[in-house]
Amino acid sequence: MGKERNKMPMLQEDSYLKRNSKITENRAKRPFIMGEKEKCPFCKGKERQLEEIYLEVHLPEERERIRIVKNKYPFCEPIKGNYGFHDVVIDTLSHKKEPKDFSSAHWVLLLEVMQKRWYQLQKDAQVKFTQIFKNNGSGAGASIIHSHWQIAAFDTLPLKQKEQNIALMHYYEEEKQCYICEQLHDKVHELIIENSEWQAVAPAVSQYTHETWLILKTHKSQYGQLNLKELQGAGELLKKLLNAYNELLPKVPYNICFMSNAMNEEPYLHFYIQLIPRLVPMGGFEVATGCYINTVHPKTHATALRQLVETRR
Amino acid sequence: MGKERNKMPMLQEDSYLKRNSKITENRAKRPFIMGEKEKCPFCKGKERQLEEIYLEVHLPEERERIRIVKNKYPFCEPIKGNYGFHDVVIDTLSHKKEPKDFSSAHWVLLLEVMQKRWYQLQKDAQVKFTQIFKNNGSGAGASIIHSHWQIAAFDTLPLKQKEQNIALMHYYEEEKQCYICEQLHDKVHELIIENSEWQAVAPAVSQYTHETWLILKTHKSQYGQLNLKELQGAGELLKKLLNAYNELLPKVPYNICFMSNAMNEEPYLHFYIQLIPRLVPMGGFEVATGCYINTVHPKTHATALRQLVETRR
Repeated sequence: MGKERNKMPMLQEDSYLKRNSKITENRAKRPFIMGEKEKCPFCKGKERQLEEIYLEVHLPEERERIRIVKNKYPFCEPIKGNYGFHDVVIDTLSHKKEPKDFSSAHWVLLLEVMQKRWYQLQKDAQVKFTQIFKNNGSGAGASIIHSHWQIAAFDTLPLKQKEQNIALMHYYEEEKQCYICEQLHDKVHELIIENSEWQAVAPAVSQYTHETWLILKTHKSQYGQLNLKELQGAGELLKKLLNAYNELLPKVPYNICFMSNAMNEEPYLHFYIQLIPRLVPMGGFEVATGCYINTVHPKTHATALRQLVETRR
Repeated sequence: MGKERNKMPMLQEDSYLKRNSKITENRAKRPFIMGEKEKCPFCKGKERQLEEIYLEVHLPEERERIRIVKNKYPFCEPIKGNYGFHDVVIDTLSHKKEPKDFSSAHWVLLLEVMQKRWYQLQKDAQVKFTQIFKNNGSGAGASIIHSHWQIAAFDTLPLKQKEQNIALMHYYEEEKQCYICEQLHDKVHELIIENSEWQAVAPAVSQYTHETWLILKTHKSQYGQLNLKELQGAGELLKKLLNAYNELLPKVPYNICFMSNAMNEEPYLHFYIQLIPRLVPMGGFEVATGCYINTVHPKTHATALRQLVETRR
C-alpha cells in the first residue's frame, strides 16, 4: 500500500516556507532519447506507442502533422489526489526540425491546435489551472530531442500563481488598472521588436540571462481569448526571435512558457509568453533565496537581440 | 555612462509577479575551470591572484588550510545600489579533494571559520541578510571544480525570505510556537539519521529529487547562534550523508544551503541546512509555476539513504 501510494502523483505545498512540488515516481521511468531516431516515440510509424491521441492536424503542402497526445509519464492524472491532465504536443514529423525553422503556416497551426486543446481542458469542471510550456534541449529539461511541447492542466493553482493573483488583484483595486498594462504604458521594459499585436521585450526584472517576453498589447488574461491575428503575430515574433537567439547563442537550450490565467478566473493577469535561454544551471544561491543572478543587463540583451532581428528582416 | 551602469551589480524585485534578481555583468567574465589544475586560482601558490584574504586557518597535522577571500566576480559589492559582500571559502588545499573525504576535524574547522566570517559580516550595520551556500559540480552551478563555498551578505532580504518571514511570524502569533519546531514534534518529515543535535530528514514537501534537510533540534534561527557541539554534529552528519549520496548517486552535482536568519531579526525562522542533489535541470514547468516535479517520494528517498548511512557505520 505504502509503495503503491508512492506511485500516485501527489501535490505538496508549504505556504510558510514557500515550497510547492508534485511527486510522481512513475515519471522517473521516462526515457532519455537524444540522438537515436530509431528509438524516438514521436517519430513517424510509432503510433502504436502513443497512449491516446487527443487532437491531430495536418499541413499537407509541407508534409507536416501536429499531434496532441496523452503523456506516457504524466505528473498529474484524472484521479483523486492530484487531478489533472498532462499532454505532449508533438509539433513536427521530423526528428530534428526546430521551431525556428517552422513556416508561418506551421506556427499558426501549432498555436491554433494548442488553443483548441486548451478549450477542451477548460471544459473539465475540475480544471483550475493550465500551463503550456516547451523544454528545448536537455539543458532546459527535455528528455526527448524530437521537438514537442507539454500542456499540464490540474485542479489547483500553484502557490506562486495563487500569491501572484492576490498581489495583482490588490494592484488593480488600488490603481484601477492592470499591472502589466501599466508597465507597457510606462515603457519599463526594453523593446526588442514589435508588431501590431505584441511587444517583444527584455523584461525590466530579468531573472534569466538573455530572457525575452512577448507581451500582448491588448489586455487579455487567457490563452483561449487570443484571436487569429494575435496567434499569427505571436508565431511571427517567436520564429524571428528563435532565429536571432540561434545566432546570438548557437544551440542554446531554451524554455517557452505561456503565462495565462485559467478560464473563469478574475482577469488580473495579463497574457504573456516567456522565452528563456538556459545558459547555466541554477546555483545554490538561487535554490536558497529564489533570487536569480543574471549576468547580462536587460538593456544589453535587448540591444544584442534587436540588432540580430533587424539584420534578418 | 549607460554602459558603466550596466556593469554595476543591481538588485531587481517585482513583488507582483514574484520575481527577484541581481544583475551583475562583471560576473559573466568568471572563468570556468574544471580539470585544469595549473589554471586553478584556488590551488597552492596562486596567492597573488586572490583579491583579499579575510580569514585563514590551518590544520597542520593534515597539511590543510581553509581561506575565506573576496570573490573576484562578486554579485554584490560595498557600493551603493546593491550593497554587500560576496566571499569565496576555499575549504581545501587539494584541487580534487571532496567534502565527503574531509576529516571530522576539517569539517569542524570549516564550520567554525565560516561562522567567524558570518560574525564579521553581521557587524556591518548595512548587512541585513547572509546566505552561505556550496555549489559542487558544474551541474549545480559551480564554475571551478576545486572545492569551495560562497558567502553573500547584503543590505536587503530576498523577496522569498521577506514573504517567508511574514508567514512564519503569523504562524508564531497564531500557534504560539515555531513552525519548524512543530513539524519536528509532529514528525511530518521522514527521518534518515539523527544525533543529539540534529535530525537529517527527507522533508515532507520535497521540491528536489533526493533532497535532504538537517534540522537543528533546538530552536535557533541564526548560524551565528550554533555552539561547538552543534557545529560538530552538523559536520558529522554532512560527511555521512555525502558519502551515502556518493554511493546512491555517484558523482552527482549538489548544493548545500544554510537557511539562516540574519542577526537582530525576529526569531521566527528555524535554522536548517539543505542538501540538494541536482539530477535534472529545472524545466519550463518549474520556471513558469515555481512548482517542482519530484520523481522520488520522500519516503523512498529516506529509506534508500538511511540504508546506506547505516551500512557505513
